[in-house]
Amino acid sequence: MPAIDLNSDLGESFGAWSMGDDEAILDVVSSANVACGFHAGDPAGILRTLEAAAARGVAIGAHVAYPDLVGFGRRNMDIPSDQLTADVIYQIGALQGLARSAGTSVSYVKPHGALYNTIAGDQRQATAVIQALLRIDPALKLVCLANSPLLDWAREAGLSCVAEAFADRAYTAEGTLVSRSRPGAVLHDAERIAERMLRLVREGVIEAEDGREISLQADSICVHGDSPGAVNIARILKNRLHDAGVTVRAFNRG
Amino acid sequence: MPAIDLNSDLGESFGAWSMGDDEAILDVVSSANVACGFHAGDPAGILRTLEAAAARGVAIGAHVAYPDLVGFGRRNMDIPSDQLTADVIYQIGALQGLARSAGTSVSYVKPHGALYNTIAGDQRQATAVIQALLRIDPALKLVCLANSPLLDWAREAGLSCVAEAFADRAYTAEGTLVSRSRPGAVLHDAERIAERMLRLVREGVIEAEDGREISLQADSICVHGDSPGAVNIARILKNRLHDAGVTVRAFNRG
Amino acid sequence: MPAIDLNSDLGESFGAWSMGDDEAILDVVSSANVACGFHAGDPAGILRTLEAAAARGVAIGAHVAYPDLVGFGRRNMDIPSDQLTADVIYQIGALQGLARSAGTSVSYVKPHGALYNTIAGDQRQATAVIQALLRIDPALKLVCLANSPLLDWAREAGLSCVAEAFADRAYTAEGTLVSRSRPGAVLHDAERIAERMLRLVREGVIEAEDGREISLQADSICVHGDSPGAVNIARILKNRLHDAGVTVRAFNRG
Amino acid sequence: MPAIDLNSDLGESFGAWSMGDDEAILDVVSSANVACGFHAGDPAGILRTLEAAAARGVAIGAHVAYPDLVGFGRRNMDIPSDQLTADVIYQIGALQGLARSAGTSVSYVKPHGALYNTIAGDQRQATAVIQALLRIDPALKLVCLANSPLLDWAREAGLSCVAEAFADRAYTAEGTLVSRSRPGAVLHDAERIAERMLRLVREGVIEAEDGREISLQADSICVHGDSPGAVNIARILKNRLHDAGVTVRAFNRG
Repeated sequence: MPAIDLNSDLGESFGAWSMGDDEAILDVVSSANVACGFHAGDPAGILRTLEAAAARGVAIGAHVAYPDLVGFGRRNMDIPSDQLTADVIYQIGALQGLARSAGTSVSYVKPHGALYNTIAGDQRQATAVIQALLRIDPALKLVCLANSPLLDWAREAGLSCVAEAFADRAYTAEGTLVSRSRPGAVLHDAERIAERMLRLVREGVIEAEDGREISLQADSICVHGDSPGAVNIARILKNRLHDAGVTVRAFNRG
Repeated sequence: MPAIDLNSDLGESFGAWSMGDDEAILDVVSSANVACGFHAGDPAGILRTLEAAAARGVAIGAHVAYPDLVGFGRRNMDIPSDQLTADVIYQIGALQGLARSAGTSVSYVKPHGALYNTIAGDQRQATAVIQALLRIDPALKLVCLANSPLLDWAREAGLSCVAEAFADRAYTAEGTLVSRSRPGAVLHDAERIAERMLRLVREGVIEAEDGREISLQADSICVHGDSPGAVNIARILKNRLHDAGVTVRAFNRG
Repeated sequence: MPAIDLNSDLGESFGAWSMGDDEAILDVVSSANVACGFHAGDPAGILRTLEAAAARGVAIGAHVAYPDLVGFGRRNMDIPSDQLTADVIYQIGALQGLARSAGTSVSYVKPHGALYNTIAGDQRQATAVIQALLRIDPALKLVCLANSPLLDWAREAGLSCVAEAFADRAYTAEGTLVSRSRPGAVLHDAERIAERMLRLVREGVIEAEDGREISLQADSICVHGDSPGAVNIARILKNRLHDAGVTVRAFNRG
Repeated sequence: MPAIDLNSDLGESFGAWSMGDDEAILDVVSSANVACGFHAGDPAGILRTLEAAAARGVAIGAHVAYPDLVGFGRRNMDIPSDQLTADVIYQIGALQGLARSAGTSVSYVKPHGALYNTIAGDQRQATAVIQALLRIDPALKLVCLANSPLLDWAREAGLSCVAEAFADRAYTAEGTLVSRSRPGAVLHDAERIAERMLRLVREGVIEAEDGREISLQADSICVHGDSPGAVNIARILKNRLHDAGVTVRAFNRG
């Protein structure tokens, strides 16, 4: 029976500022990318999210980021490799400590925002992140943009990788994400999104923005929980997968 | 043969700013209280300090603090208990991750600065810190001011405690530290410091500021490494202990 | 004709995190306490709020705070006086620069959260804040809790003060705020709130929690804009004041 | 009589961490680039530096930077223009407030570190910085790398510019700085440095790394104060200029 993982970003509130409905999206996804304090997340809020994830048996990933709270980790930073490696280790370790305290554990790492986009194609920064995982725990899986060079770099270094597709994003004919600055980059129609993802899971194929069908092998699909509309799209996708006989489960529990 | 632990604060540089001579003091002490990023320490610098400590077999403690970089953790903060517990877990976890990456591990926790002083007598904040250790790893030892109520609170909660004396501080007749704001609170004479600490180790006795002899049971002595003079005092103390047949070793390697 | 100022806290979003509906509450109030970056507010967001306030002719106050973003400035901090004075000057200056760039100016200072509460009764910290205003611009008015010792300290130092009442808070028979931890501390009934404030403006009298009538001289009333319900209470209060012939205008435009 | 300005970076201590000998270098320079809290500088420390500069009549510049304390503003950040403009305004305003409190004022702006290097050639970020000056105070002068496109962009926008040379840096035949990563990029011989700068002032000529003589028009020379050796180089340069009849004075006091 086919299976797929659904992941989402959580724990992104910060102190008095709340973001997203963690409880609602945790009822949908199988994997939670939990903020580690560098782009979002304060320790007490992260701990509450981890407890809620643990209560539902949702897998935990460290959503590591550039140290840029005010920019929410979305601004590129040119960080020297030794600093980036140590930053990533620090964040994973902090989340491991909180996860242990919540009765769960960190099983994978998903870089956030600008770091995610940068290491998909920048080998220097990618290597710094890969080194972080190898040094703290080589059994940690790394979530990588499907079709990106990062997948090769990480596998060659000995890491297990999870190729990721985005439910609500358009793809180019080359299999990369259409830039958010272009019209049509983000999809909003829940039915269409569910249809596309179901086909992706079953056939490993997705329709690119120019109508061509391209191959896309993904182990996990990213959904959002930062608005009621986003949570609804995720719910519809999950139901559609279920109705089609696709199991939603964490990639590391295959 | 009598034995004692010597501990010191390390890893307190931050980015472009350096503080202390970690390499020099690591050659003297048996335990390193390593900053965790809240009062001092950036991940890359912390990692270097941990590697230097690991190379010398020095034990590692998490020097957890209030989240107050500009105040170096020296300003009292009235942090709600759930936030304080999570802050301490976060810091311990981050240091554990970096320590693992450096081939070593965290064996104890020593609160820093204002947090250290506050929890010596404030039961609410003390309980929040104790809960942090219990939740992340109850085998972690807690370094407590000798003669403080914290020792009882922590032991009653099931933690192993390390009672700590300060090599360069004067004591009141009640066995507490003379406030830094009073003259004579800090000692500078290396010979006198060594003499006092040797007697402390051998007899469990120290002379208070008023000349009375008081009982002080300590498992570890804190020395400083933030100036060449301080490192020298620590070296003289260690030599004196050695010459008197006292072994300097980490408290957790008894 | 009687007049009163209505003030509210604004500019409290931070990066990707939004808080409050600044545009909505700016249509109600005559004075905006704008965050300065220490408890909330990033420069670009502050600037947008200042532009919106300038467009409506709303007076600008610097909502200075402890340097505690994750705690939203709500946690007491024991900051040495020279540091606190410089922190307040820094924040006022930053807001003055942004205000100038938005075509407006800062006319008063209102401390935020824990700093507000602390200096209402703690003379050391109060003096540090007063010194900040005297040093950067003695013409800046200071918003003080009505009936608090701070009013006397600030006036004796030569500052102009604005006594402030809180629309949605219960008062003790001594004229101080009922602690938020006690039931009934916060009022939610818009009609009752409007009634109480109208009487406060007309007669300088408010009913305390025990039913006694107490004297309360206020130059400004604080309302909230951090929820649709709060904005609605503020609107109803403003309408009620208007219908009763009370002018709502900034205290410094008497 | 020929004149030149000598500038240096000051106020770069942060909390418990000290950097540079501000008092010593203030006795040498005519202009102080004072940190504004984003890459370095806490408010109390900045205020002390400003008071020391005011006491000596040294001109004050805002040493604005990327918001990157742990990276000391030396790491490139891709900040959207509206955010960068507001960040720069915020920093200038904060320094203006502290300068006013110290009895002096901010007369120019010198971007720091990675921001300085980036805007020398990146027109988008340069424009964002230029807009900041235009919005807060168009009379503020902008210190720009001599021979850089920034000079043209800033002048076209209506700003007064100060072209800057670096005393201890080698130049390429194109008149740009030799990258620090190349051998010989930084000069250490005080006599040679003084000789080069004297010729620069008198003839507007400097010898490039390949021995060619190039034209370099500079209004100000940057010297360092972050080590005793650096202060000594600055002193020797100043004495040499003085002996040769060159007046050292702030560029804005011509």
